Amino acid sequence: MALVALLMGSERDREAVRPCLEALEGLGIPYEVHVLSAHRQPERVRQFALGAKEQGIEVIIAAAGLSAALPGAVAAWTTLPVIGLPLAAGELRGLDSLLSIAQMPAGVPVACVGIGQARNAALLAAAILALKHEDIRQAYEKYRQEQAR
Amino acid sequence: MALVALLMGSERDREAVRPCLEALEGLGIPYEVHVLSAHRQPERVRQFALGAKEQGIEVIIAAAGLSAALPGAVAAWTTLPVIGLPLAAGELRGLDSLLSIAQMPAGVPVACVGIGQARNAALLAAAILALKHEDIRQAYEKYRQEQAR
Amino acid sequence: MALVALLMGSERDREAVRPCLEALEGLGIPYEVHVLSAHRQPERVRQFALGAKEQGIEVIIAAAGLSAALPGAVAAWTTLPVIGLPLAAGELRGLDSLLSIAQMPAGVPVACVGIGQARNAALLAAAILALKHEDIRQAYEKYRQEQAR
Amino acid sequence: MALVALLMGSERDREAVRPCLEALEGLGIPYEVHVLSAHRQPERVRQFALGAKEQGIEVIIAAAGLSAALPGAVAAWTTLPVIGLPLAAGELRGLDSLLSIAQMPAGVPVACVGIGQARNAALLAAAILALKHEDIRQAYEKYRQEQAR
Amino acid sequence: MALVALLMGSERDREAVRPCLEALEGLGIPYEVHVLSAHRQPERVRQFALGAKEQGIEVIIAAAGLSAALPGAVAAWTTLPVIGLPLAAGELRGLDSLLSIAQMPAGVPVACVGIGQARNAALLAAAILALKHEDIRQAYEKYRQEQAR
Amino acid sequence: MALVALLMGSERDREAVRPCLEALEGLGIPYEVHVLSAHRQPERVRQFALGAKEQGIEVIIAAAGLSAALPGAVAAWTTLPVIGLPLAAGELRGLDSLLSIAQMPAGVPVACVGIGQARNAALLAAAILALKHEDIRQAYEKYRQEQAR
Amino acid sequence: MALVALLMGSERDREAVRPCLEALEGLGIPYEVHVLSAHRQPERVRQFALGAKEQGIEVIIAAAGLSAALPGAVAAWTTLPVIGLPLAAGELRGLDSLLSIAQMPAGVPVACVGIGQARNAALLAAAILALKHEDIRQAYEKYRQEQAR
Amino acid sequence: MALVALLMGSERDREAVRPCLEALEGLGIPYEVHVLSAHRQPERVRQFALGAKEQGIEVIIAAAGLSAALPGAVAAWTTLPVIGLPLAAGELRGLDSLLSIAQMPAGVPVACVGIGQARNAALLAAAILALKHEDIRQAYEKYRQEQAR
Repeated sequence: MALVALLMGSERDREAVRPCLEALEGLGIPYEVHVLSAHRQPERVRQFALGAKEQGIEVIIAAAGLSAALPGAVAAWTTLPVIGLPLAAGELRGLDSLLSIAQMPAGVPVACVGIGQARNAALLAAAILALKHEDIRQAYEKYRQEQAR
Repeated sequence: MALVALLMGSERDREAVRPCLEALEGLGIPYEVHVLSAHRQPERVRQFALGAKEQGIEVIIAAAGLSAALPGAVAAWTTLPVIGLPLAAGELRGLDSLLSIAQMPAGVPVACVGIGQARNAALLAAAILALKHEDIRQAYEKYRQEQAR
Repeated sequence: MALVALLMGSERDREAVRPCLEALEGLGIPYEVHVLSAHRQPERVRQFALGAKEQGIEVIIAAAGLSAALPGAVAAWTTLPVIGLPLAAGELRGLDSLLSIAQMPAGVPVACVGIGQARNAALLAAAILALKHEDIRQAYEKYRQEQAR
Repeated sequence: MALVALLMGSERDREAVRPCLEALEGLGIPYEVHVLSAHRQPERVRQFALGAKEQGIEVIIAAAGLSAALPGAVAAWTTLPVIGLPLAAGELRGLDSLLSIAQMPAGVPVACVGIGQARNAALLAAAILALKHEDIRQAYEKYRQEQAR
Repeated sequence: MALVALLMGSERDREAVRPCLEALEGLGIPYEVHVLSAHRQPERVRQFALGAKEQGIEVIIAAAGLSAALPGAVAAWTTLPVIGLPLAAGELRGLDSLLSIAQMPAGVPVACVGIGQARNAALLAAAILALKHEDIRQAYEKYRQEQAR
Repeated sequence: MALVALLMGSERDREAVRPCLEALEGLGIPYEVHVLSAHRQPERVRQFALGAKEQGIEVIIAAAGLSAALPGAVAAWTTLPVIGLPLAAGELRGLDSLLSIAQMPAGVPVACVGIGQARNAALLAAAILALKHEDIRQAYEKYRQEQAR
Repeated sequence: MALVALLMGSERDREAVRPCLEALEGLGIPYEVHVLSAHRQPERVRQFALGAKEQGIEVIIAAAGLSAALPGAVAAWTTLPVIGLPLAAGELRGLDSLLSIAQMPAGVPVACVGIGQARNAALLAAAILALKHEDIRQAYEKYRQEQAR
Repeated sequence: MALVALLMGSERDREAVRPCLEALEGLGIPYEVHVLSAHRQPERVRQFALGAKEQGIEVIIAAAGLSAALPGAVAAWTTLPVIGLPLAAGELRGLDSLLSIAQMPAGVPVACVGIGQARNAALLAAAILALKHEDIRQAYEKYRQEQAR
């Protein structure tokens, strides 16, 4: 059963989020993937976000470019921790999506990572899940130790 | 009965949107005002947007600062024309809200005006409504002629 | 008879505005296209803008890059709703054209869409025209519903 | 015993982080506060970060302005989730600290919130801790529900 | 008879352009001042620009903030040298007006000076007029020499 | 005898300035070209600038990228009008050179054109020279008229 | 005899550079101060820079705002290490001076510190001088140790 | 024995720093190279920085992209002069690394050079070392003289 749900706004984002999925796999974190647009499919985003906790999801990663409303839209409908992954989808190379995701107003938090830093989105999910899941904690600590060498 | 609905994300935005309301009044355009946060109150935003057309609203103006999701969130739930008014709410002085509102992804349009240009939001609504409402057309054309002198 | 006029500053912009024309066609909205530079051909811009309403045009879309004066220049001469489409024509990749189009001073509104978001310019025109034209309303609502699936 | 440690780079940041502490208190989350500079006191940062997990800390919030190395420096020494809070400390009003915190290289994640959004840093910590601590989950969900009204 | 015409978009710009007028006076350059908005009063801008050369104007200085179309609009209607003076009129503090004025497309030149650098606009006019007017050449060279001390 | 001197900071800029030379030729304006670096060859820049007026030069065009000191350095040594042409030489694509050239401090003016807008640098020189040289006036006005068609 | 020369472009910069002078004094580093504008007084800058080494100066600190040519102009005339201190003198709050100072072209180096970071300019001078002057080394190391506590 | 240590955050930076190594070689300055990540390998960075002075290193050059903590992290652990070389590693093309390196808080200085200006990093090291090492002084002055021709 998935602990992490990765959402992306468009099929075209699949390549950009791949390092996230690879890192989740490498750390043994079960995940599911959804292609959902905050603007084109608000009802599907709402349904997903309202039901995520019941389905066992503990962390949501939402990747989006341009005005990048997806992470905030999901966070509006759920209290699960939401990681926002800004993508460099347009001419401004992600400066727009970074600001849209990072500059959330007070009251609804989103955890923003760097532009296109899909792997870090997975690692942040791991660090969060490690507080509760001993196997993830061990896998993540091992990953960090190997990296430090 | 209101033709224009002005939404703002927070009570603190009331001062910033005042020139919009004054201009609507000056042009004889009936309006209503709602304080609704896209992130803190997504269900209320959804309910408003889904019902706006039936209540006779023809243009929606949504003002927001920071990541400024409100105009896009409303536009996601309705096919009415949505005017986005970026506000200079934080340290980046509206550059963030401008990009969040203007850089909408393909499929759901928002009509962005300048940072804090509340009056222009009203005038754009007037220009749109003037296509259909003869009294608004006359009022708006008169306004523009007087301004040109 | 055209309801929408699409203006672009240069022949080189034709490729960039194509998704706009395709979307207008898909929605059954009659349009015409003009290549007009605000700076190189101010008299032709003026003549077009002053005569547009009489010729039945209801919405003007103006695409431009760099200092992108075209949308504002057209809006200065007409009270029709003007949609500004910033293009990524130079080294700053449209940040300049976005600011030039969005940051209009009070008194003359322009509806700005995202950098290079030609399709959204068409959809915004459709949302505006849908207030008055039943066939366009149906076509646009159908488009949005299909997209939501 | 503290679950959250809030670090700030300078005594001058105390006012800026106050909404974070108030929100943690409001949610009943025990916390501790340290004034530590990543650049002026690297050994103290290292000692804190290496020992945080053992002392029962589960989430670290690090607030910093300018080049804002503190969140990343802490994250380099620990596998606990680190929330970075960019402050508007200098002439660039936090654009520098936002980029420094958000644009972490692959391998060491930091969860960035908005410039000066101290309350959201606390809420993000709450969302993370809620996965494991039932009382925090209830408090955070109640907070969000009240806010939605 | 005026050699320089200073245009500004709004009465509110009068304070910002004062150092320009003082410098022109100090150098003995006759000038005239017009308040003309490119967007609100396009016909008056056109009339002025088309007639400027005949009235003996040799250099036009146009000051504007925000999308700052005035310098380009004037330059479109005349072949006289046009100096654009970007003003810090809105939240973006003149970054918008600087880009709007500097990033003119090929074919119609504008000489941009720094944001709010009203004195330099006058000095640039002096340097241009000095090529032809011996008294201005002497006054300008004397000004520069005194400044170098 | 040259009326315009075009300076560039490096041999690598030759391609970027070509449209400037072509436009000068097309307008019949005699020119000369120098490769001179403000930082690497300050003495040669000084010698050129101090002697330019005597050699009959009436307008100097200085092209430079990055911190782009050349236009200002030349302007510091001469009272001739200096046109600064920012080039997109580095990773910031000319934003740096634009700001370095446009944001001159009070006292020494530079006429800045757009990033890489080499042709406009030539046209601005033509507009300036046209005040004094009847043949250039005619050529420039003819150029503008043809362009307007 | 001064080891450090601090140059500033204008008398108005004196307040901004004070922390630099205080830090130099605190570290026992003899210094001298000059008010010199790269653009208004190029000959005085040249004379100073050409003679600095002979007068015993070992490090030059040059503070400037806006297009901030001073550090580069000095570095062009000398091989001494030059520290550039960007000041927030205009509407862009030092982003312009930072880019102008940092983005030096290849061949002539300038050591840029943060916007308005006058104290760090002094500390960098100390770190450089400490390689050769034992007393400065001791004073600087003591300063850093005290700061670390 | 090396006088300069060049650190880079990742093997992928090797191409970008090559002009630095070539310039050091050309000037006869002995150097060593380390690949060390401030975030992934903080202990190795600490060990290097704490031991650098004893091993005879006099100047450290640290190259990094994105949030670019390496120069500041090294400077935190040593009093040797540290030159920061921002690299254009991500979508923001080095604007992020430039700000992260340049905007160091008061107390710990870093000497920032331009984005990707690897050669200037070497020349700045040469200018610093030239104060103490006569052979480097001669080599650097010769380099500058040849360049001026």
